[in-house]
Amino acid sequence: MRQSQLFTHTLKESPKDEVSFNAQLLLKAGFIYKEMAGVYDYLPLGLMVLENINQIIREEMNAIGGQELFLTVLQNPELWQKTDRWNDAQVDNWFKTKLSNNQELGLGFTHEEPLTALMKNYINSYQDLPQYIYQIQTKFRNEIRSKSGIMRCREFLMKDLYSFSKNKAEHDKFYELAKRAYAKIFARCGLGEITYLTFASGGVFSEYSHEFQTLTKFGEDIIYVDKKKKIAINKEVYNDEVLKNLQLDKKDLVEERAVEVGNIFTLGTRFSEPLGLKYTDEDGKQKNVFMGSYGIGPGRVMGTIVEVYNDEKGILWPETVAPFKVHLIDLRKNKNEDVYQILQKNKIRVIYDDRDCSAGIKFNDADLMGMPYRLVLSDKLGDKVELKRRDSKYMSLYTEKEVIEILKGNYK
Amino acid sequence: MRQSQLFTHTLKESPKDEVSFNAQLLLKAGFIYKEMAGVYDYLPLGLMVLENINQIIREEMNAIGGQELFLTVLQNPELWQKTDRWNDAQVDNWFKTKLSNNQELGLGFTHEEPLTALMKNYINSYQDLPQYIYQIQTKFRNEIRSKSGIMRCREFLMKDLYSFSKNKAEHDKFYELAKRAYAKIFARCGLGEITYLTFASGGVFSEYSHEFQTLTKFGEDIIYVDKKKKIAINKEVYNDEVLKNLQLDKKDLVEERAVEVGNIFTLGTRFSEPLGLKYTDEDGKQKNVFMGSYGIGPGRVMGTIVEVYNDEKGILWPETVAPFKVHLIDLRKNKNEDVYQILQKNKIRVIYDDRDCSAGIKFNDADLMGMPYRLVLSDKLGDKVELKRRDSKYMSLYTEKEVIEILKGNYK
Repeated sequence: MRQSQLFTHTLKESPKDEVSFNAQLLLKAGFIYKEMAGVYDYLPLGLMVLENINQIIREEMNAIGGQELFLTVLQNPELWQKTDRWNDAQVDNWFKTKLSNNQELGLGFTHEEPLTALMKNYINSYQDLPQYIYQIQTKFRNEIRSKSGIMRCREFLMKDLYSFSKNKAEHDKFYELAKRAYAKIFARCGLGEITYLTFASGGVFSEYSHEFQTLTKFGEDIIYVDKKKKIAINKEVYNDEVLKNLQLDKKDLVEERAVEVGNIFTLGTRFSEPLGLKYTDEDGKQKNVFMGSYGIGPGRVMGTIVEVYNDEKGILWPETVAPFKVHLIDLRKNKNEDVYQILQKNKIRVIYDDRDCSAGIKFNDADLMGMPYRLVLSDKLGDKVELKRRDSKYMSLYTEKEVIEILKGNYK
Repeated sequence: MRQSQLFTHTLKESPKDEVSFNAQLLLKAGFIYKEMAGVYDYLPLGLMVLENINQIIREEMNAIGGQELFLTVLQNPELWQKTDRWNDAQVDNWFKTKLSNNQELGLGFTHEEPLTALMKNYINSYQDLPQYIYQIQTKFRNEIRSKSGIMRCREFLMKDLYSFSKNKAEHDKFYELAKRAYAKIFARCGLGEITYLTFASGGVFSEYSHEFQTLTKFGEDIIYVDKKKKIAINKEVYNDEVLKNLQLDKKDLVEERAVEVGNIFTLGTRFSEPLGLKYTDEDGKQKNVFMGSYGIGPGRVMGTIVEVYNDEKGILWPETVAPFKVHLIDLRKNKNEDVYQILQKNKIRVIYDDRDCSAGIKFNDADLMGMPYRLVLSDKLGDKVELKRRDSKYMSLYTEKEVIEILKGNYK
């Protein structure tokens, strides 16, 4: 797209009331806008990043048999009373509202209850299992403090998948598949190297749950990492017994700050039992469906990427999630759209800075906004163009033809 | 996709508490699920239709210069107090909620206020105008009655575009473009022939607003239609003076029931003035930005399509919005995936009924679910396959090769 047509622009300073590092950068670069603490709009560039992350998540969820649907925000108390999660004494972060007839409703902070109830229409026999259902949908959590930018919001997008299995053995197989799918998602988002499968507190149906924790200096969590084995333990369950269980040695572990970018949890029959989600097994017996839940916050992934990939000049988006692959800057006296058109024809995602402003402003904006490649056209370069990776200090000169091949990924 | 892998299935009867025709059919066919009156989940097939409609809307909004963003549900009262729309006496369908510190918040029923406030960051001079900003996002309206299925929901997706112009002349130009874009959207969704540009009540800044009304027997609105001139008048403004103004003759008009699938509205400075969205013009003078709003409910469009395209057996989706183009039914003794694979290789969207059940059940389900083409494989047909359009009584026999060409649209 042409940058002159983008309604947003970079800001000289980020708003003073913003304390989190990820939101400061994203606000300055024009990717988000703050409505209030923990409530952020996604501006066009921010929405593009979010959609790229969503698309990666969708592909990996579909690859392990996930089916996408779209549940509602408004929640009927009846279902949540059955699982004892309606009461504010049990769940302290509900947003609640009322119908005009005064009937109370909740705004969903998760969706186990409505989906379990819905599945009663579609699960009757063992032949209807297993099923893996997910959505990418807005959740609401009435956080007391919300000072981590887009990492801990009162309103945020979440991918939540729920698995419905015949028994623990069938569940465990999918749980392992989901672990691998999650690892792929974080790898594709550029966070693979520093994201650790982390043992956290479990529940009645499994000793542990699993978090995916990404090392960042502003992370809210403390984890103990075995970098060789590529696993970690959340501080909440870190003790000698757990170490022994997991066959980890205290002296191989490093304490690190991290942010939880995903979690997977064995729910067992915690929800199917009170809500009556049963199936008839091969012997004609009624059994409770065995469930699991698998969450990722795309906005939190985006915030984490920003906290990991940045320098003093701005953001460095990994190519997979960047709004555009190339930032094209035309400094020629007689600007024209030739190269912009060729890039588009070759399906290379490009933002073209066609604004009337100084080279300095253009370079600063490109660095702040963080597209993976900067391509400069200038009369000084003769028939060459200048390519620079955002994560490198070095520029190289190429012919137009060469640069297209490089950007198409045909050679390095 | 393979139908055996779809977790939903058709229902013999629609739930008794559902009174609306569109929701009855969509519930039976497994496209939606009812959480409560006016609150519906979109199941996988329903979500596919919704996304197809969203995509058509996006393409047409982008074609007239629209930029997509994503605003929040949670609303800060401060902004709405400035325009006098916070008070329940002024706006009677707010859903309201509270932060844990008791601060009241609203759930957005529209987004003029937050977007106008946001644009103050990005509009300073006449050079920053015009701008056209839209989103596809969930709205909340506390309707007292909600008995029209997915046509009038308490929670629903809406595409809302807002235009920001220097003055009425610039606004009027875009308003005409938007009219044409809307006509294209409804035409692409299969509603073009029976959707009328309809004059409705205006406001301070224009004599009329414009609705797009689709003729349906269960429509909530009454309009007077001139079928030759392809325009209509909403009953609310139908009088002799308006007829004279629009140069319409009473005897050319027919009274019809219709559903409002879209509306466009000249807002003028109704929001920019109280919220202080100004720009500096060519002469250095401060002026209020001139605004317009342009809404479409994708769910309502989906409901309208169902109310228009159906017969006693089920739904007849237009190809542009159908979840799949082809319903493939394999009745051969030795089923195999050959044709399914060939269709997929040719990028024809296909649902393959690979279930172990009778031909009768398969045919009934295919009719109820409403894909545009049904393709039957049977040992009785020799080396031919049987193709039937959902909207036709007639079947034709083709070779596999011919049918692929037909479904690719290469000949009719």
